[in-house]
Amino acid sequence: MSQHQGNFLEDFSPNQVFQHAIPRTISDGDVSLYLALVGNRNPLHCSIITANNIGLSAAPVDDILLFHVAFGRTVNDISLNAVANLGYANIQFKRNAYVGDTIRSESQVIGVKENSNKSTGVVYVRSTTFNQDNEEILSWIRWVMVPKRNNDSKINELIPNDLPEISDLSEIHRHDVSYADFNPIDTGSDLLFEDYDIGQVINHSSGMTIDETDHTLATKLYQNNAKLHFDAHMMKSTPFKRRLIYGGHIISLCRSLSFESLENALQVVGVNSGVHSNPTFAGDTIYTRTEIIDKFEHDNFSGAGILRLRQLGIKNTPSALIENITSEKNGKKIYDPSIVLDIDYFVVIPKRK
Amino acid sequence: MSQHQGNFLEDFSPNQVFQHAIPRTISDGDVSLYLALVGNRNPLHCSIITANNIGLSAAPVDDILLFHVAFGRTVNDISLNAVANLGYANIQFKRNAYVGDTIRSESQVIGVKENSNKSTGVVYVRSTTFNQDNEEILSWIRWVMVPKRNNDSKINELIPNDLPEISDLSEIHRHDVSYADFNPIDTGSDLLFEDYDIGQVINHSSGMTIDETDHTLATKLYQNNAKLHFDAHMMKSTPFKRRLIYGGHIISLCRSLSFESLENALQVVGVNSGVHSNPTFAGDTIYTRTEIIDKFEHDNFSGAGILRLRQLGIKNTPSALIENITSEKNGKKIYDPSIVLDIDYFVVIPKRK
Amino acid sequence: MSQHQGNFLEDFSPNQVFQHAIPRTISDGDVSLYLALVGNRNPLHCSIITANNIGLSAAPVDDILLFHVAFGRTVNDISLNAVANLGYANIQFKRNAYVGDTIRSESQVIGVKENSNKSTGVVYVRSTTFNQDNEEILSWIRWVMVPKRNNDSKINELIPNDLPEISDLSEIHRHDVSYADFNPIDTGSDLLFEDYDIGQVINHSSGMTIDETDHTLATKLYQNNAKLHFDAHMMKSTPFKRRLIYGGHIISLCRSLSFESLENALQVVGVNSGVHSNPTFAGDTIYTRTEIIDKFEHDNFSGAGILRLRQLGIKNTPSALIENITSEKNGKKIYDPSIVLDIDYFVVIPKRK
Repeated sequence: MSQHQGNFLEDFSPNQVFQHAIPRTISDGDVSLYLALVGNRNPLHCSIITANNIGLSAAPVDDILLFHVAFGRTVNDISLNAVANLGYANIQFKRNAYVGDTIRSESQVIGVKENSNKSTGVVYVRSTTFNQDNEEILSWIRWVMVPKRNNDSKINELIPNDLPEISDLSEIHRHDVSYADFNPIDTGSDLLFEDYDIGQVINHSSGMTIDETDHTLATKLYQNNAKLHFDAHMMKSTPFKRRLIYGGHIISLCRSLSFESLENALQVVGVNSGVHSNPTFAGDTIYTRTEIIDKFEHDNFSGAGILRLRQLGIKNTPSALIENITSEKNGKKIYDPSIVLDIDYFVVIPKRK
Repeated sequence: MSQHQGNFLEDFSPNQVFQHAIPRTISDGDVSLYLALVGNRNPLHCSIITANNIGLSAAPVDDILLFHVAFGRTVNDISLNAVANLGYANIQFKRNAYVGDTIRSESQVIGVKENSNKSTGVVYVRSTTFNQDNEEILSWIRWVMVPKRNNDSKINELIPNDLPEISDLSEIHRHDVSYADFNPIDTGSDLLFEDYDIGQVINHSSGMTIDETDHTLATKLYQNNAKLHFDAHMMKSTPFKRRLIYGGHIISLCRSLSFESLENALQVVGVNSGVHSNPTFAGDTIYTRTEIIDKFEHDNFSGAGILRLRQLGIKNTPSALIENITSEKNGKKIYDPSIVLDIDYFVVIPKRK
Repeated sequence: MSQHQGNFLEDFSPNQVFQHAIPRTISDGDVSLYLALVGNRNPLHCSIITANNIGLSAAPVDDILLFHVAFGRTVNDISLNAVANLGYANIQFKRNAYVGDTIRSESQVIGVKENSNKSTGVVYVRSTTFNQDNEEILSWIRWVMVPKRNNDSKINELIPNDLPEISDLSEIHRHDVSYADFNPIDTGSDLLFEDYDIGQVINHSSGMTIDETDHTLATKLYQNNAKLHFDAHMMKSTPFKRRLIYGGHIISLCRSLSFESLENALQVVGVNSGVHSNPTFAGDTIYTRTEIIDKFEHDNFSGAGILRLRQLGIKNTPSALIENITSEKNGKKIYDPSIVLDIDYFVVIPKRK
């Protein structure tokens, strides 16, 4: 019998495909616990009436929750031993998912690069999630730093292609949603597509402190079993000295904290790129800032427009107090130590009637 | 675009009505998480068989959970910036709610008073919660201390009427419940309406320590987004120095801890008044004492009687050790620092056959 | 009115039967929260597709969750005042349970022994759990140390019979499950019954740190109200000085952590014996080791075989580093202080086709 202890850099071959294990039926319990963990107030995910109003027969699962559960499927094969989850690109939320749906994920290796230290490397994968009818509901690219099992092993490298942007949104649609029938009374805000301007910056005022059980409960909910989130004994002998918070938890908090002043940004439909620029730990308080970096209309979302947002996750400093997001150091752009997330994504927001 | 950062004293006009946002469908997940957060053992809320026995087709949602979710709707408009939630009166649980029901709340301003310090004031509101059929299921009065945006602003005051008691319970009924068919084996206690005496004091022996994730998870479950419960960074620079626990969490714990010796007090139907007399913080252990202050029968509750309870929430001292609830200081009655809740409410309890 | 504060040694009579209170309907919320609390990744409990594949119309409730909820029913009568939960024997998982089932438990006293210190004693009970159709789904024996109300009381003793082993599994069956149709892609492991050898030892590599809210939330979910898990104020004056973690939580963590390398061990069908050999507290990191102590086929489980496992729960030391599980001290075998659980149980695992 061979024990399963996760893959090392040597175990990833160019173009290899993983059929990830553990199909997951999403339940009312998952939805409710997610809401309680991240403080989500988006009515589309907690009110059947809001969903019915825009033509849906049930409340769709929160996009970011769906991403986390889909992502969780991939951890055991891709990132169980990861040193760091370096980034995401091209996340496409292709279809809504609902309570009762059973999802599964698969991944293809699209890049393998050894680091110059010969002890670690970077693996790039494109992952895709399907529902019980084998419809593609979600796909994304991510890259992770993975240790080598043995410094001397020779790695079969594959240089990844340039990571595609998804600004055309051509593969994403919500033809089943009639955003024109959305009732802003459900969010309490009359700010619609027309009310946002490119270049506008929103310093959301609310902050949320993360405690150990918050992030470990969330990460276990997604069945993401990366050891560095859970094993404080092991982490004591790392430079972090304690458990590292799953970066995805910060994405959830920023999405949730930015409900204030983006109340009608009902759904996330795509993410161009996301970087966990600094680690977070229990005790940190997260704030968020949003910049509107683009806005446009798209045939796949009738009655609504698209806002492209740059959103920052910030620890222990209210968003309005942040002056420089990055600085130059030895000719290299580095993030301010308080910036923990820098994500560029698209939301759908109803238009004024 | 104007950002939404909650209302200040200047923003409340006499008789103004708020239609609160974020309708909420109550799910099995909410019920289960609430049970786990507060240690609820009342079988009426966790056993279909118990509910069926008394003529209900499903287990009704716990009254206090329903209150918290209903209350949560009102926070963003009424108390996002509140310094303190000062008290409640006249909470009427008019109808049962069930999993699958979608609730919404509205509030009317019934009082606005500036404090002599000119930097804060008190707002009184009457809030009402409706289900998806627009039936009124719950209503209450509360008053909160709210800061002024500007010390110099002139406030349009409205002196509130005397807060009504609800001792006649005329607007509350459970005609759909046949308490006479209740089976005490489901609670394990044979103590029924007849077994309690006016003046009797019960020192419940169990205590429950609150950790940060307990109260923040509960409060996020209710979508109550008052900042002082969540933002430890902000709270560091307040006199509290740390996150303040949502007072409603203490009501839940006292209700739950008082199951011992009040096992058959199946439902809360009304609250005359409630005061959060001192703050609570993570690490505090809550105990509770109940005094039976009245008992009577009422046509709206067939097969059962009503007990009127005065219940105290006590921190870090077992209930039996409390000698003086209040003391005189400079001619004013002040609560012992260990008393964190003083609530006066009505429960339905089946009568002996 | 007599207050209910739990039973003391004097309150247990030989052969006495307790019909425990608080029937419990198991919900999707319970299942989801359990998964998030213990990090369970067994697809049989989170994927309708996996359940359907082996002939079940819904995902069965996790066996250990079912045990905890069933056990929780018994605490108020048996172990509310227990000093320690000493051990379990002969746990039989007779039938699957499903979301929507309502369970109740009863217990018979099968042993009462006073300790030589005259201040405590040991109570042995056989407990049985039934579903809403009065089918027996689970039964077990446990023994707990209970204080006497009064050192001078005379105890009516009953020496328990030898605790039966359940190696014949004759009362347990899964005739409704066609394990032959199980698809190992759902767990990601091709290790089946044939791949394990008697004597083989698996040091599972993952560890999980327990925080206060983790174990208190789990224990409240089961409505297990034993005070020593919840009341930090009371526990300060005990030798433990803090809240003690419910031993059952360690069983859950070990079962969950041992998914790695035992992925296809789909169900627990019986437990021969279990001992909480040392206490655990918040902050401890749990690891687990499994030894295959027997393997055999059984007519009641078609298409699958049975593995008998000895599983250790270990705190703050990775399993691979443990050398001696027990040592001799004054002629007595004592557990290494890091060993917190020693459990001997049976799992069903599909056979190769």
